[in-house]
Amino acid sequence: MNLEQYIRDIPDFPKPGVVFKDITPLLNDCDAYNYTVGQLLKLIGEQKIDKVIGVESRGFFFGMLLAQKLKAGFIPVRKPNKLPHKTLAQSYDLEYGSDAVEIHADAIHKGDKILIHDDVLATGGTAGAVCQLVKELGGEIVQCNFLMELTLLNGREKLDGHPVASLLKY
Amino acid sequence: MNLEQYIRDIPDFPKPGVVFKDITPLLNDCDAYNYTVGQLLKLIGEQKIDKVIGVESRGFFFGMLLAQKLKAGFIPVRKPNKLPHKTLAQSYDLEYGSDAVEIHADAIHKGDKILIHDDVLATGGTAGAVCQLVKELGGEIVQCNFLMELTLLNGREKLDGHPVASLLKY
Repeated sequence: MNLEQYIRDIPDFPKPGVVFKDITPLLNDCDAYNYTVGQLLKLIGEQKIDKVIGVESRGFFFGMLLAQKLKAGFIPVRKPNKLPHKTLAQSYDLEYGSDAVEIHADAIHKGDKILIHDDVLATGGTAGAVCQLVKELGGEIVQCNFLMELTLLNGREKLDGHPVASLLKY
Repeated sequence: MNLEQYIRDIPDFPKPGVVFKDITPLLNDCDAYNYTVGQLLKLIGEQKIDKVIGVESRGFFFGMLLAQKLKAGFIPVRKPNKLPHKTLAQSYDLEYGSDAVEIHADAIHKGDKILIHDDVLATGGTAGAVCQLVKELGGEIVQCNFLMELTLLNGREKLDGHPVASLLKY
């Protein structure tokens, strides 16, 4: 199955000069998203995963499906002030300014084997911050897993040498 | 399984006087969320569903799992300016002011049988707006499906007589 036909390019979104990869056609087709989950699982192989982290909010879709297939817990990492209980926060640099992500401090137990999932690996700022949160909570990062990777942006270099896998490379 | 033990009350979140129902412990436990999906599916029964709508963003978690089990497409309904393609928007009243939700205009085909899922039915403002979007696009609402319902707020009355089902009533 050619998954790229289910992902459409949206020029100048969210700002001029950016071409956004819209995965909503992929989500809207059961066969296509099931095939995608199967391919993402192949990237993980037989590795044991205790918890899957999905990064707000497009990482929630396949993150949740992956968690179920892996018989793992699911942990949402969110933008600031969205998670209601005690959180740990990590900021990261953007092209202009900075942003941050948060995780519930009790979501990970020391030694938990963690899969981090997001839809896109771009500059790696967000995923790098998530790696930092996992380490601070004592989790063991098994893989940083992405549906798409914008290879020219070298996001992998921000992920501290953790294993990185992506299904579609642009 | 007593699901309520996986849902924790957070007083004064997101604002003073509100008790927030935090479902992250439920998501973090594979047996608990699988059981939840099974119970939500029982509420739907044998009804045919073409598309499941998950409402941003806590409706994405179980919405995505329900879509997969129902062999249906998944459609995210999001806050304004998050969906990149051509959208239809619907505003709704809040206690003070108003908010809005958007759907991709091409997400639903005329006659599609639609399940609307969100984590909580409170005043019904959001879900009512989603119903309106589905109707404008020609979809047929089979059920408005919620993990939790705050019954004292009478949200059902905002849903234009569409079938409503909720798993946990408070």
